[in-house]
Amino acid sequence: MTLFSLDESQIFEAIRAITPHRSPDERAPRESSNEDAEVAERFARAAWSGIAEPGDLVAGVVVRALGAGPALMALVERHSRSRVLDSLATAGVDEVKPSVLATALERWMPRLTAGSALSSLRLAARCGARLVVPGDEEWPGSFGDLGEHEPLALWVRGDLNALNRMSHTVSLVGARAATGYGEHVAMELSAGLIDRKMGIVSGAAYGIDGMAHRAALASSGFTAAFLAGGVDRFYPSGHDALLTRITKVGAVISELPCGSPPTKWRFLQRNRLIAAASKATVVVEAGSRSGSLNTAAHASSIGRPVGAVPGPVTSLSSAGCHRLLREYGAECVTNADEVMALFTPVSDNEPRLDTPITQAAAGPASERRQQHRSSDEVRLADALSSRAPRLTADIAKRSGLSISRTSSLLGSLSLAGSVVEGERGWKKIEP
Amino acid sequence: MTLFSLDESQIFEAIRAITPHRSPDERAPRESSNEDAEVAERFARAAWSGIAEPGDLVAGVVVRALGAGPALMALVERHSRSRVLDSLATAGVDEVKPSVLATALERWMPRLTAGSALSSLRLAARCGARLVVPGDEEWPGSFGDLGEHEPLALWVRGDLNALNRMSHTVSLVGARAATGYGEHVAMELSAGLIDRKMGIVSGAAYGIDGMAHRAALASSGFTAAFLAGGVDRFYPSGHDALLTRITKVGAVISELPCGSPPTKWRFLQRNRLIAAASKATVVVEAGSRSGSLNTAAHASSIGRPVGAVPGPVTSLSSAGCHRLLREYGAECVTNADEVMALFTPVSDNEPRLDTPITQAAAGPASERRQQHRSSDEVRLADALSSRAPRLTADIAKRSGLSISRTSSLLGSLSLAGSVVEGERGWKKIEP
Repeated sequence: MTLFSLDESQIFEAIRAITPHRSPDERAPRESSNEDAEVAERFARAAWSGIAEPGDLVAGVVVRALGAGPALMALVERHSRSRVLDSLATAGVDEVKPSVLATALERWMPRLTAGSALSSLRLAARCGARLVVPGDEEWPGSFGDLGEHEPLALWVRGDLNALNRMSHTVSLVGARAATGYGEHVAMELSAGLIDRKMGIVSGAAYGIDGMAHRAALASSGFTAAFLAGGVDRFYPSGHDALLTRITKVGAVISELPCGSPPTKWRFLQRNRLIAAASKATVVVEAGSRSGSLNTAAHASSIGRPVGAVPGPVTSLSSAGCHRLLREYGAECVTNADEVMALFTPVSDNEPRLDTPITQAAAGPASERRQQHRSSDEVRLADALSSRAPRLTADIAKRSGLSISRTSSLLGSLSLAGSVVEGERGWKKIEP
Repeated sequence: MTLFSLDESQIFEAIRAITPHRSPDERAPRESSNEDAEVAERFARAAWSGIAEPGDLVAGVVVRALGAGPALMALVERHSRSRVLDSLATAGVDEVKPSVLATALERWMPRLTAGSALSSLRLAARCGARLVVPGDEEWPGSFGDLGEHEPLALWVRGDLNALNRMSHTVSLVGARAATGYGEHVAMELSAGLIDRKMGIVSGAAYGIDGMAHRAALASSGFTAAFLAGGVDRFYPSGHDALLTRITKVGAVISELPCGSPPTKWRFLQRNRLIAAASKATVVVEAGSRSGSLNTAAHASSIGRPVGAVPGPVTSLSSAGCHRLLREYGAECVTNADEVMALFTPVSDNEPRLDTPITQAAAGPASERRQQHRSSDEVRLADALSSRAPRLTADIAKRSGLSISRTSSLLGSLSLAGSVVEGERGWKKIEP
């Protein structure tokens, strides 16, 4: 195996250092050509994660069609555009236009340098990051929903099992410039979801993200952070301690190799991972141009439920949430139970506005008895006094019910102990 | 014309006093048998409005089928159930079940007293209320949407033309126990809608209703209040001065004759009038069992748009609004423009969550330029510095774009004045 004229053993060593360990003899000397092939594929994935920007559709297609190793070799050996097209056609892929491929090759070549791939591997080894690629048992199945936008590889610091726990997480995101209200709600939702055995995914930004992570940690829950740059240097730096704590119980994850700085583009693409990782995305507080709306958009585009927490209409910091409710069909969520309901099937017998209107104002179950009285009972109660006894005829007239209906209702209500008849007529008994 | 053995001239006089005046000779002596018939019909409507409780479906069917006068005569003359069924059949109505009609006759009879009809007419005359019945030019056409739940008559204090202005109103309703936040929003919405040439309909209750009326008056706008009892005695009494002011520029309206006390049932039925009168109903602030949810339910059941104003999820006073958003498909509204949009057709090219995700975070039009940059431009901007000049190859590598694409973008951006090339490379120009 020779790549970039690098010493084979250097590559082997670097890859071994960042590969999830599965067997007791994990540090045994290499043995099989099988392992050689695996190392080559892992190295190629690692290299590709630095060559193609996150979300590079053409890279996704080429790597998937040819395999990361052969695709990388095609770059290293400077295969012509038509040769690559031939390889793709052999693999059954013919949707890549020649001009698109040419542009892609042009943008990949400037980044094809031997040193950067190896140095990012070494940075990863130094900070304890490991590389997870599709096919690894840790690879989150939920990322399959990203299709050709699925990341080529993930760099993980912390608990590798965190990736398998993504199927029981909710993404809580929101504005950096959060208000006290927003942070309070982020904390309540995060703690409430942890209580309900869910984990919290977020982006480690100041404001809502940070509060969501912190509340999860404070509740001894699971939390994971997706970064827009390499996991070797935490961003924002003010959250260095927080992110370090997250690596102890959860994971800090990026699709970019170590040494990569975060950029605006990478933040937008990082948001798709936050959206795809979890069962649902909830925007806790967001101005009308907050990046968390982008996360919500990603979630929606792959069919994940999106919740938005309302706030005062007088607060600009809730304007983005209200936009989500108004324009994007996000669900209004006000507590952890409602967040759980985003992805938990509900029964069909919810009250609707077109159900009988006297029931529409019904409150909590304990108080519904009062509300679920028939309309005749409501009228009868209106016509009764708890102080002045009234005769049946009078009650009938006041209530607009017939005398016989009035008698029969009074009878059943007196059995229930709600009314009592004395010498001068019927009185209501206040509960 | 003889009803209840009342003196004909008493009835004539009482009805004349509460009938909208249309001609200069409005006080002229009676002339035609035509007018006799009209007086009889008006009197019968007035009587029916006291005999049947609001929303009495059977009364609606019978009065509509036979006419208010003949229907009243049938009661006065104690027609048998089968005779009334025959009359209904002759009028083409056969959907009333005999047992239902029997019950209805039994509940109407206790209220059929000569004195009460006439005394409510006299109370009306004393307070300046007038009677409007279907067919009058003042009758609000929008009430037709109530079908058989259309009121039998309306009692109006104030400007009769108010009824014709209902087609340009919005109903603002909400909790009596409003917070400062709720009252502030009610005031803003009410004033904002008045600015947009709309009138405000509400229920004159303490809290949100009162604030909605007051803000409309303060903006010299039109407002109308629907009461659950007779318009001769304003309820709540603490809003006596407010309701009196409303009669000066708008109207105070009830379907119940003067002298009728408000009851729980009548409040619920009154809410259907608030919902039907206007173009849309907006719940400004409401606890989870607020009566205003009932108004929203009525609006929804006759196809009127329902808006709900969100608030802090920590405020119980907004819980009802959030329920409307969550469970009843109400629209989230945060300002007067959004209320207008409830009933104003909008174009289809609104952004949706499934539009390209880089656009989803777009803000006000003035700031969209930044957001609508192509993804390549975003990447290029990420790779440029405003301080350190960079060479094209370096920029290509940092951005992950091809060198030729980088050059071409730099060229067009330099024409636009966003970048500048010096001896040591390209720099970004901060706006």
